[in-house]
Amino acid sequence: MGAVSGPGTETPSRAAAGPKQARSRVTRRHLLEAAVSCLAEQGWAGSTVAVVAERAGVSRGAAQYHFPTREDLFTAAVAYVAEERSAALRELFHAGPAPRPAVVEALVDLYTGTLFRAALQLWVAASNEDQLRPQVTELEARVGRETHRIAVELLGADESAPGVRETVQGLLDMARGLGLANVLTDDTARRARVVAQWSRILDAALG
Amino acid sequence: MGAVSGPGTETPSRAAAGPKQARSRVTRRHLLEAAVSCLAEQGWAGSTVAVVAERAGVSRGAAQYHFPTREDLFTAAVAYVAEERSAALRELFHAGPAPRPAVVEALVDLYTGTLFRAALQLWVAASNEDQLRPQVTELEARVGRETHRIAVELLGADESAPGVRETVQGLLDMARGLGLANVLTDDTARRARVVAQWSRILDAALG
Repeated sequence: MGAVSGPGTETPSRAAAGPKQARSRVTRRHLLEAAVSCLAEQGWAGSTVAVVAERAGVSRGAAQYHFPTREDLFTAAVAYVAEERSAALRELFHAGPAPRPAVVEALVDLYTGTLFRAALQLWVAASNEDQLRPQVTELEARVGRETHRIAVELLGADESAPGVRETVQGLLDMARGLGLANVLTDDTARRARVVAQWSRILDAALG
Repeated sequence: MGAVSGPGTETPSRAAAGPKQARSRVTRRHLLEAAVSCLAEQGWAGSTVAVVAERAGVSRGAAQYHFPTREDLFTAAVAYVAEERSAALRELFHAGPAPRPAVVEALVDLYTGTLFRAALQLWVAASNEDQLRPQVTELEARVGRETHRIAVELLGADESAPGVRETVQGLLDMARGLGLANVLTDDTARRARVVAQWSRILDAALG
């Protein structure tokens, strides 16, 4: 409606809509960020709309206005942070082609932070909760496709060549496995050695 | 004590100890197997000693006699099934050297069944529960070392050569990541293609 209204239809309440919408967007973002930290730190069992609202300093009513269900809030949160991470990764390599080891390292890094911890909690909870499964399955497929696209682009891989698609997929599977290995202990040193070795192997495989 | 007693010390109660110990071992095994299925299907939140005792058809008191705490029961259960899987894997290749693709497939299979689902639930729960973390961290390190040893042996990898240790580690990280990809959806077809491609790459890397 707003987009088709002429300037003559402007009223005081319309004029206030701008800042109000901006505040609403900020509230939404605070909720999404609080939801991801909450999930990563406390797991699905400890993550409710009420806990996140308190963390974000937002009323429970406002939280429920933005996200009617617990499932909506937490899948939206993981989706939001995943998009932020993807955008940051593209941005990082915007300047031009990067050496493959740096790309592999950046891809692996996608699976070692708060986002991965939160996504893992959601993923594992969805395997036992019928109510959560459809949304998380759809989300993982979407994020997975997007990460694959970014990986192909940044690695300069030619997917028309036989096996290249599976080579890139396997690399991302490895990155996911490395992420899992980092959940209980700090696996940084071992991971760096594995990544260095597999960067060489990947480089030879991709030609 | 029993091992050093002569035949003259045998009493009716001693004679019954054999079958009694055998029954105790069977009860223990039933509890461990029920615990793994329970964890895989219902997650950590739904897995208690009482639920497992009922599944195994054992009294709660008997379950608590074998496993004083919830943490004891579930870490022992994952350890037990992991040892069974390792033994079966060694047995499978006992006849002689197997082709590498078959070995890679068998290694990846370690991460796609009920055991992996159960271990994953425990692993993720341990990241949020201080009480569970030390036991699970120790268990994962132990199982990880054993799986690595088996992989090196079955792949005929020479770890004295530079990079070979990290090559095998990366393969197991990939297998773990493939396991995670199979938790919400049946990833069998995609996994087979990735494994076939990375078997070729690994074969070239190991020489």
